[in-house]
Amino acid sequence: MTAVMNQTASREFSRIHGVGSFRPDVIVTNDDVCQWIDSSDEWIQQRTGIVTRARADADTSLLDMAEGAARSALASAGIEASQIGAVIVATVTFPYATPSAASALADRIGATPAPAFDISAACAGYCYGVAQADALVRSGMAEYVLVVGAEKLSDVIDNHERTISFLLGDGAGAVIVGPSDIPGISPSVWGSDGSRWNAIGMTHSQLDLRDAVLQAESSPDGTALVAGTEAQLWPTLRQDGQTVFRWAVWEMAKMAKLALEKAGITAEDLVAFIPHQANMRIIDEMVKQLKVPEKVIVARDIATSGNTSAASIPMAMDNMLKENPELSGGLALQIGFGAGLVFGAQVVVLP
Amino acid sequence: MTAVMNQTASREFSRIHGVGSFRPDVIVTNDDVCQWIDSSDEWIQQRTGIVTRARADADTSLLDMAEGAARSALASAGIEASQIGAVIVATVTFPYATPSAASALADRIGATPAPAFDISAACAGYCYGVAQADALVRSGMAEYVLVVGAEKLSDVIDNHERTISFLLGDGAGAVIVGPSDIPGISPSVWGSDGSRWNAIGMTHSQLDLRDAVLQAESSPDGTALVAGTEAQLWPTLRQDGQTVFRWAVWEMAKMAKLALEKAGITAEDLVAFIPHQANMRIIDEMVKQLKVPEKVIVARDIATSGNTSAASIPMAMDNMLKENPELSGGLALQIGFGAGLVFGAQVVVLP
Ligand SMILES: CC(C)(COP(=O)(O)OP(=O)(O)OC[C@H]1O[C@@H](n2cnc3c(N)ncnc32)[C@H](O)[C@@H]1OP(=O)(O)O)[C@@H](O)C(=O)NCCC(=O)NCCS
Ligand SMILES: CC(C)(COP(=O)(O)OP(=O)(O)OC[C@H]1O[C@@H](n2cnc3c(N)ncnc32)[C@H](O)[C@@H]1OP(=O)(O)O)[C@@H](O)C(=O)NCCC(=O)NCCS
Repeated sequence: MTAVMNQTASREFSRIHGVGSFRPDVIVTNDDVCQWIDSSDEWIQQRTGIVTRARADADTSLLDMAEGAARSALASAGIEASQIGAVIVATVTFPYATPSAASALADRIGATPAPAFDISAACAGYCYGVAQADALVRSGMAEYVLVVGAEKLSDVIDNHERTISFLLGDGAGAVIVGPSDIPGISPSVWGSDGSRWNAIGMTHSQLDLRDAVLQAESSPDGTALVAGTEAQLWPTLRQDGQTVFRWAVWEMAKMAKLALEKAGITAEDLVAFIPHQANMRIIDEMVKQLKVPEKVIVARDIATSGNTSAASIPMAMDNMLKENPELSGGLALQIGFGAGLVFGAQVVVLP
Repeated sequence: MTAVMNQTASREFSRIHGVGSFRPDVIVTNDDVCQWIDSSDEWIQQRTGIVTRARADADTSLLDMAEGAARSALASAGIEASQIGAVIVATVTFPYATPSAASALADRIGATPAPAFDISAACAGYCYGVAQADALVRSGMAEYVLVVGAEKLSDVIDNHERTISFLLGDGAGAVIVGPSDIPGISPSVWGSDGSRWNAIGMTHSQLDLRDAVLQAESSPDGTALVAGTEAQLWPTLRQDGQTVFRWAVWEMAKMAKLALEKAGITAEDLVAFIPHQANMRIIDEMVKQLKVPEKVIVARDIATSGNTSAASIPMAMDNMLKENPELSGGLALQIGFGAGLVFGAQVVVLP
């Protein structure tokens, strides 16, 4: 009785066709940071590996950075914006509830009328985006998918706090995912642990800010705002660094191993390891636990970029390929992890 | 030289296995609305078809509503939360930049460690989520995907403004997408038009709010906040109603036709039409242009729910199936559209 209808035909394989990045140009040194918090250049370098972080000035918006990264990824892939079948922007710092950064970005680069949406998966956002792009390409729903990780974290940090502010930078990275003749993206190992939702996150809800602002606006002299609060009203990032550190080192090394296993390869087959740039000690510890061979190039972008959340992996990949173009075509393990807690890992053929 | 690796194996078909919803219990009448804006019950009913809208009280959070809808969808599908392979929450009103609503929701319902993320695609968010769930299931990356549309729009409206506040309600709806023996979700027709990014959106950037708040906090008496601004500082929704109305009626009817075409069916094959609940006149106009036959049940949930953005279609679907259980197994056309501008449409087999 019911009519039988069509469903999309699928493709066998997908891969990354191009990568690009945008690095903002305000260089924040550890000495700069030590004006704001009780710390030292030595402590920060030793405990995090960060020497400088790059941040965007007031005139450089998240969309500007996303556009720069997207255009460079398009050039790298050698495709036109009109060939893009979906635009995914992974971000937690776009300052509008709606519409999305992605629909504005699609219009800026000429990818309209491609479907466009933002995803919120913190520092795993790029790997989550690649997982979805892989699914969209292989299920036949898009030919090329633009995945951008873009963050202006400087908008949501309090420079005077000591748990996370000194780690963070701004930036954007992008890849183009498309069809392939050989397997180019391994089965994604991705997941969440919301029982640790409080390990990294905002100081408070935007609704607390709203209530305070509305109250101040309705008071005759507008003083209610400051009088009623001790903490800063604008929500900023905080973390329980040790919880995140231990989780990253122990659980994420396991997930990275699982990604290799699901790809059907070993660390010996890799040419590169590109983990989320959260802390140099986490990177070193993962390299040890995964027994990553010496010959494998390891991304250590954090030294000059800081932690740029969803942008860190494609930024590091772009950097690495510029310095080592011979890695193109080789296998890289990428893993993102962060607030949620959430994580995502894949082995990819480098563009 | 390069090792060849695995990529996920795919499935042929997917379908919706269950649907659920949560309706908050504060009933806001047109007379209530007319306390705040210069309007009338008659005008609102005639121009929008809305008689009442439901909103959540201060104690009912977006997550509470999302959880209610998710649990009812799980029960409807007859699966356990542990079988869920991904959790997608479509929302524009979760009041934290990070972590996502989805990771908290996954933990609340027992779907951890499934990957979990939020998507931002406004009133098309649910259809975008179904498109991705379809891709994840068919590409073999998840067996069951929970797609939730959840909005507490009352947090981002200014009751005293006249372009959109009176249209909006709160609520949540959810579906479970999983494997199927027959085609259950047609090729998604989805897209964006960022050139009309300003047609619906927020009054201003959160960064304007931040700057004002930080300035007030650093002023000795805290009065800078109110003194410096004329408009409300908390960003709220606005729209150019006529632009959206015309786009919805003309462009969306075309996209709905294209969805039927790509599904390989005609309006005669439908048992139900479930458009985004934006305005009864838009619904009536689409019915006319699509030549939807009389026998087809049309969702008109807006009369008592208002426009609940990403939640409206699954809420209406759940309502419709409760009133007409015999529709189960039949074909329904669903189409979402909104801020971006963005749109998404599919024909689905009703659960
Ligand atoms: C944040 C982080 C660098 C802190 O390093 P740590 O070695 O764990 O530091 P601890 O919190 O154990 O503190 C050790 C000492 O350093 C001090 N300290 C903490 N933060 C400091 C700072 N910013 N500068 C100087 N000293 C600091 C502490 O007060 C403590 O001093 P004490 O021994 O006298 O009590 C580290 O925990 C980390 O990188 N965690 C993971 C972060 C991450 O990846 N987050 C994002 C994931 S997306
Ligand atoms: C918002 C909407 C109901 C307004 O209806 P409309 O028929 O387009 O109204 P207009 O803006 O043309 O205004 C017509 C008259 O109604 C008045 N009016 C506008 N809003 C009014 C209100 N809330 N109450 C009473 N009168 C109102 C206008 O002032 C105008 O009066 P005038 O003729 O004396 O100048 C309609 O445009 C709409 O539904 N648009 C699409 C909305 C939508 O779907 N948005 C979300 C998409 S996700």
